[in-house]
Amino acid sequence: MTEEFASRVSITSKSGLNAIYPSHDPEMISFTGGFPDASLFPTKELGDSFQNVISGKQTPFQYQIGEESEPLRNQISQLLAADGTQVDASKIMVTQGAQQGLDLVAKLLINKGDGLVVEGPTYIGALAAFDAYEPTYYTVGMEEDGMNLVDLKKILIQQHVKLIYTIPDFQNPTGTVMSLAKRKQLVELANRYDVLLLEDAPYRWLRYEGESLPTLKSLDTQDRVIQLGSFSKILAPALRLGWLTAGNDLFERLQELKGGSDLETSSLMIQTVDYYLTHYDLNEHLGKLQKSYQVKRNAMMNAMERYLPDFAHYTKPQGGFFTWLTVPEDLDLEKVQNNQLKPSFHVMMIPSTNLFPDKTHRNGARISFSNVTLSQIDLGIQRLSNGLSSGYQKRSV
Amino acid sequence: MTEEFASRVSITSKSGLNAIYPSHDPEMISFTGGFPDASLFPTKELGDSFQNVISGKQTPFQYQIGEESEPLRNQISQLLAADGTQVDASKIMVTQGAQQGLDLVAKLLINKGDGLVVEGPTYIGALAAFDAYEPTYYTVGMEEDGMNLVDLKKILIQQHVKLIYTIPDFQNPTGTVMSLAKRKQLVELANRYDVLLLEDAPYRWLRYEGESLPTLKSLDTQDRVIQLGSFSKILAPALRLGWLTAGNDLFERLQELKGGSDLETSSLMIQTVDYYLTHYDLNEHLGKLQKSYQVKRNAMMNAMERYLPDFAHYTKPQGGFFTWLTVPEDLDLEKVQNNQLKPSFHVMMIPSTNLFPDKTHRNGARISFSNVTLSQIDLGIQRLSNGLSSGYQKRSV
Repeated sequence: MTEEFASRVSITSKSGLNAIYPSHDPEMISFTGGFPDASLFPTKELGDSFQNVISGKQTPFQYQIGEESEPLRNQISQLLAADGTQVDASKIMVTQGAQQGLDLVAKLLINKGDGLVVEGPTYIGALAAFDAYEPTYYTVGMEEDGMNLVDLKKILIQQHVKLIYTIPDFQNPTGTVMSLAKRKQLVELANRYDVLLLEDAPYRWLRYEGESLPTLKSLDTQDRVIQLGSFSKILAPALRLGWLTAGNDLFERLQELKGGSDLETSSLMIQTVDYYLTHYDLNEHLGKLQKSYQVKRNAMMNAMERYLPDFAHYTKPQGGFFTWLTVPEDLDLEKVQNNQLKPSFHVMMIPSTNLFPDKTHRNGARISFSNVTLSQIDLGIQRLSNGLSSGYQKRSV
Repeated sequence: MTEEFASRVSITSKSGLNAIYPSHDPEMISFTGGFPDASLFPTKELGDSFQNVISGKQTPFQYQIGEESEPLRNQISQLLAADGTQVDASKIMVTQGAQQGLDLVAKLLINKGDGLVVEGPTYIGALAAFDAYEPTYYTVGMEEDGMNLVDLKKILIQQHVKLIYTIPDFQNPTGTVMSLAKRKQLVELANRYDVLLLEDAPYRWLRYEGESLPTLKSLDTQDRVIQLGSFSKILAPALRLGWLTAGNDLFERLQELKGGSDLETSSLMIQTVDYYLTHYDLNEHLGKLQKSYQVKRNAMMNAMERYLPDFAHYTKPQGGFFTWLTVPEDLDLEKVQNNQLKPSFHVMMIPSTNLFPDKTHRNGARISFSNVTLSQIDLGIQRLSNGLSSGYQKRSV
């Protein structure tokens, strides 16, 4: 038969999400996935939480009949408030990780061809979610203090944009933090040009140095900011629990779309995380994570400083999981990775190609330090450096 | 600001999924939700399974790196094989309940305006999933032995249809089983007119009498059938675990779309259900469910036989959770429910309005017997009968 897929499929099939999975090479040191360090999961505490919820009076195994998620939404509201963002629990939706929030927001807003601004580079999974709704992408370059707002303004003047997607804290993949000045300016631009903002903040509470800056949501006075959060990086990914906050009208519609997508998120997961947050100290746990990831971040910075060739540049993240490597434009990192790094040097990262909507950027790569050991960081960056130097000599200019 | 939603939102906002939630009236007897009976959940066994998986060698809390779902997919493949449907485990995808399968299949196939055949009435959540992709619906009426294939053939001759959605076993909401002759004919029609079939089978293993008939998937020789299954009704909804099987090319694309939608289903849930299936006897558990639901089905049939007014008709389901009530065309059951049944008789069901894409059908209703007690069934049907009789007298003809 002739299979006719929806037109969105021709785009989504090139999402490159597979690039994050490690190879089967036992020698491989992989800097690809945005995986948290499994040794830091609060396994005992989560196990106790599951056990208590399962043996509780009310079964956690049934469908929700309405307000089962309220206690957890209250907890999330309090976590956000402690971080300076006031959101009523009734405007918080529990999602299947923050990833589902990306899908639902695009489903809500994007007709084929609608204008959507993303940072370049941006989160690979966001592009995978957005692609399905066939937006017209406008890519705004990243600077040291966040996206280039001069370029953004030009786009907003010239094009009809519905939504701006940004990761202000420890951006994925560059590790960059958007400055306070830019945060304020971005919200003003959104107001002036009547655009919605999608603030994705899964790494926000993993800061290893410096002062936290206000969220876009907390600077928002016109209900223009939809904010996404997640327990995946701060507790555990397999909880598949994230959240979304949005203004009234948007919120209701997003809930309806959630119903059509998967009916609901598991009561068991919701009640278990509520139990964890009630009975254990998340801040103490975050302190432990920050300490441990800071050591890894430092090891990564030291190794890069020590081993990387002069032609390679990298960002110095104050938090999150990633640093961003840049090499001269005539070096195609996807080719270098496939032809040299993976087969000969047993090291891999995520080349920039799939991190831009137009897939033409070649000389960048995301390097994750969260799920590798200190010795893997040292050895892996040595290998990477040797591979890059060898690739730089072999480049076809 | 002027919020401009995607055009799909004007449709999805009328999905009526909310109709399945019970009211806050403490006197209410609700026949609305397709909820399993919580007292039948294998709580101890699932609790043990969670505990064993959590305390196992390999953490179940991390993202999947590839083949974590293979053991469960093998188990599902064996369950399907024992039921006469041969599907390789590599062609089984674990989904967030069968609901996510509905969303992904529509996402894969439906461009705005594409032809989609559904049964009338059909599953309310399927319409909620499909609406988001703005199909052109063609509704085929239900008969005692499944959908009207004469009408279906006319549609296939006259219209360009991409996909036919059907629930052959204990259809939601009519409780009907599609006959073997119709199953064969349906697959032939799909072959002849080059259409894909979406077979939704969440109730298939809940048969209380009669012989099981072959699945459409087992009759399929051209990889035209995408089949959905779920552990929600046979184990517990809050596991949020379903599965999807499809032919090669379709399958790969569906996996890509799943990634964009929610990255993945929880490893913890996947490993826990695998543990349950390995260490406990699902067939024994199914036997227990069948016995208990059979008693409820019988009680429902007895009460309907005894109390319902002569102008009301209902189906006699051999399995599943539902019977379908039909009253004369001049009785609008949504009005009767809102004006009389709910406020005065404290009983509710799901009127047919939202169970047809065009929302013009008024004189039918889904009645669920799965999550009510025997005395609630008896009392509730008495109330319903009194309410209907009173409504019938008050109808505005």
